[in-house]
Amino acid sequence: MLSWLRHYRRAMLPGDISAGIVVAMMMIPQGMAYAMVAGLPPVVGIYASILPPLLYALFGTSSTQSIGPMAIISLMTASSLAPLAAPGSALYGVLAAQLALLSGVVLLACGLLRIGFLANFFSRPVMSGFTIGSAILIIWGQLPALLGGKLPHVHLPSVLLGLGALALLMWARQYLTGTLRRIGLPPGAADIGAKLAPMGVVLGSLALVTALALDAQGVATTGQVAGGLPGLNLATSSAHWQPLLQPALLIGFMIFLISMSGAQTLALKRGEKLASNAELVGLGAANIGSALSGGFPVTGSISRSAVNFAAGANSQLASVITASLLGVALVAPNGWLALLPLPVLAATIIVAVLGMLDLSLLRTAWHYDRADAAALVATAAGVLGLGVEAGVVVGVALSMGSLIWRASRPHIAVLGRIAGTEHFRNIDRYSAATAPGLLMLRVDAGLFFGNVEAVNERIEDELAAHPDTRHLVLVLSAVNAIDTSALFGLKELNASLCQRGVLLHLAEVKGPVMDRLKQSDLLQTLGGRLYLSAAMAWDDLVQ
Amino acid sequence: MLSWLRHYRRAMLPGDISAGIVVAMMMIPQGMAYAMVAGLPPVVGIYASILPPLLYALFGTSSTQSIGPMAIISLMTASSLAPLAAPGSALYGVLAAQLALLSGVVLLACGLLRIGFLANFFSRPVMSGFTIGSAILIIWGQLPALLGGKLPHVHLPSVLLGLGALALLMWARQYLTGTLRRIGLPPGAADIGAKLAPMGVVLGSLALVTALALDAQGVATTGQVAGGLPGLNLATSSAHWQPLLQPALLIGFMIFLISMSGAQTLALKRGEKLASNAELVGLGAANIGSALSGGFPVTGSISRSAVNFAAGANSQLASVITASLLGVALVAPNGWLALLPLPVLAATIIVAVLGMLDLSLLRTAWHYDRADAAALVATAAGVLGLGVEAGVVVGVALSMGSLIWRASRPHIAVLGRIAGTEHFRNIDRYSAATAPGLLMLRVDAGLFFGNVEAVNERIEDELAAHPDTRHLVLVLSAVNAIDTSALFGLKELNASLCQRGVLLHLAEVKGPVMDRLKQSDLLQTLGGRLYLSAAMAWDDLVQ
Repeated sequence: MLSWLRHYRRAMLPGDISAGIVVAMMMIPQGMAYAMVAGLPPVVGIYASILPPLLYALFGTSSTQSIGPMAIISLMTASSLAPLAAPGSALYGVLAAQLALLSGVVLLACGLLRIGFLANFFSRPVMSGFTIGSAILIIWGQLPALLGGKLPHVHLPSVLLGLGALALLMWARQYLTGTLRRIGLPPGAADIGAKLAPMGVVLGSLALVTALALDAQGVATTGQVAGGLPGLNLATSSAHWQPLLQPALLIGFMIFLISMSGAQTLALKRGEKLASNAELVGLGAANIGSALSGGFPVTGSISRSAVNFAAGANSQLASVITASLLGVALVAPNGWLALLPLPVLAATIIVAVLGMLDLSLLRTAWHYDRADAAALVATAAGVLGLGVEAGVVVGVALSMGSLIWRASRPHIAVLGRIAGTEHFRNIDRYSAATAPGLLMLRVDAGLFFGNVEAVNERIEDELAAHPDTRHLVLVLSAVNAIDTSALFGLKELNASLCQRGVLLHLAEVKGPVMDRLKQSDLLQTLGGRLYLSAAMAWDDLVQ
Repeated sequence: MLSWLRHYRRAMLPGDISAGIVVAMMMIPQGMAYAMVAGLPPVVGIYASILPPLLYALFGTSSTQSIGPMAIISLMTASSLAPLAAPGSALYGVLAAQLALLSGVVLLACGLLRIGFLANFFSRPVMSGFTIGSAILIIWGQLPALLGGKLPHVHLPSVLLGLGALALLMWARQYLTGTLRRIGLPPGAADIGAKLAPMGVVLGSLALVTALALDAQGVATTGQVAGGLPGLNLATSSAHWQPLLQPALLIGFMIFLISMSGAQTLALKRGEKLASNAELVGLGAANIGSALSGGFPVTGSISRSAVNFAAGANSQLASVITASLLGVALVAPNGWLALLPLPVLAATIIVAVLGMLDLSLLRTAWHYDRADAAALVATAAGVLGLGVEAGVVVGVALSMGSLIWRASRPHIAVLGRIAGTEHFRNIDRYSAATAPGLLMLRVDAGLFFGNVEAVNERIEDELAAHPDTRHLVLVLSAVNAIDTSALFGLKELNASLCQRGVLLHLAEVKGPVMDRLKQSDLLQTLGGRLYLSAAMAWDDLVQ
């Protein structure tokens, strides 16, 4: 806790200050926009960007993670609350905070139970598919705000403003860094300058709205923002604990996954180490903080954290500075925030989310592992077809399904002896000799419930192909573990082989595996013997 | 299909006939009792024992599997239908058949899609916990029928009859085989004779009810059984397809799991091979057949199949004979069936289910692998606390959780060279020398999304412990596969190490793994080199 503060060095201060300012300027339009995605008033996005990063700074372990509203979590919030309350209603706001509270408690509990390994339930292709599907849903959801009406009805001034901002932002995304470098900025500064384009476009559009009185012409704006810092929010709806529990579990899971995947990337760049259970506690505290300040579920944002990192953040002090600046923005006169045009905020969301439409993993997977590519596409389709929450379930199911599927097809080699040596190799790859009556199989995977049937089937196939077999030697050099299911599988195999007059032998059992087997009765009941090496089994069994 | 009939030999006939008769005599009380467990009239249990085994004989692959009602599936049927209709109502019967139809379609679809590997989602400890929890629920559910009323209210004549039958059956279960052998029966026949005790007790109780007019004294009996074979049932409730879908998925999964685990045990005894996808088709057809004859979900019964096997069944002809005899029993005068006392049927259920309360796997797992034992207990607790359907979900989650947990803790060894040899070993187990600036790690598991973070963390730990490292060699001799997630993990590791001035080398990459890696750009971007063996890496990198 706060170990970054104990080791703080003065030299870290300038980087933290500049990163704190840059991220605050990025956070204002982004926080407001993501609150819109969540179906909440824009100011709630600012509320959710103050207390959460302060609490994360207390408990979290990443030095550069920027905690606050994030597109996918906002989308999940909206989709969880939609059946329970109308967006804009007082109940909706209460439920959003309650959802953050429950998600925070879930995260905190997982952290205290030390079950951070659960994040491994999602493979990267599935995460990529989930992100792509969510990005498309978010863009689709912003079209009415961008165009000032639901298609086919649009509001022309809004369309012009929205599409203009969109074009400007897409140009900035592609070319602004280069332009800034050409006018003399150093590479790092140019990069950061380009990231502030949304703030610039938002401020420009504000000037435009004011000058042309566009709000009077029907362009929707954010509307009056309540001034001052958020008050302490303790409102909950007792009737909604139960219907919010399942969404909170799914959202808590995604909060952790999204935050970790971003933080890992940055930690790798600095050779830092993240403690996943401490991260769970940090994210849990952040979400409880969001709930207490009337916010909604928050997480570490990959894009914002990358800017924080690039702008020189050396510690969580940068986030503390960002949060302080946002607090100042709420306390200072902020009547101008009321006139931010929604079409422009929608454009900033769409451009931010375009970065999530990254197909590079799909391309790699397509060439490297077609099954992973299929899982990616299926998860994206699940999010689009069934919604973002069902998408999480589809993702977990596909990750687990592919795991079980791979596990159920272990590589098993029939071994033969390389003439004149002590070496045994796969007879399909090497010219190695087998001996009559002796069948040697090497299983290249740990034995567990997922492959015990497959191993059995393969053994029966080989026995059918070698009907003269009297001795079956399982070479376990690549078997790192044998679980209880596989132990029973081996016992049944042994009994079945005994009945058929075949002796089962084990060779090259690893130390930790042998330690376990000694706790069972397999070794006492084994029809055959235990050999230290395949060569010793051969010498003993071949006459 | 019907391959057993094409290869039928005359010598198989006597065994099939005797097994067919024995199983039919076992099936009558059991079928009626399990229909009671499912909340259905007892005769429906006979209906569900005729067409299903005939269809399984057409499509299934096990020679000795006995298809029909089974305790756990009946329990799941009752718990699925309870929220939808009142037991005994016409709708309840329609929904039971509809559930069988949907389960059958699910099974058939899985078979045609060839996704039988999904059965591997359940580990054996979890299956054992599920069975134990279900057995306790079934016994608990039969207590009112056994005692003639809900506790604390009991009906004395029923209690006497029920507990008497229970005592007799438990005695028979323990001692009848021995008694029959002492009076001269050969071991096999004595064993089978003992299995017919339930039929004997049921017939005896029938005589008692008739002689003492116990039904007039308030002992509940089966009541009038509609005579004749079941008619073709096409009734379904269109409002219930959707609420029945999820139960049908869970029940279909358990039908397959239960049937396969029984059939596997018997197949191993004969060295037969089961085709899991063909089994799915056989079980799917059987359940659709059950639906068409007004039955309810059915599966292969482990206990009945074992009797079938022991009584000499050589092929599915035994099941065809059983089904024919049950058909005859329905067509013949069967007024006597109306007087079967329910307390006695409840006693037969309880004694049958006691066999499921098998703690041997728990004992083994307790000594062999504490985590597996915990999963067993947690699944049993889940069934008891949350119900049998939620228990399936808990079981899958625990199986997957333990899999991910194990996967997230791969064994990684720091390698050193055994002086004067080309052998490299774990420096914790052998006295092997390391070289300054060179760190060699052997990962003893396939690299995939479940362990990519753990491998990364361990590498960072080792790098922190060896800050002078200039070359990191990953020895991949035990890595059988690298999935897309792990490929990206390696690419990121490589980039991160390059930044820090450490070169990443790979050694002893297996053939199939290398074939894949060549489809990616990892090898081009690798900071270090590729070595055929750990010794070659050492020789090249140590000056």
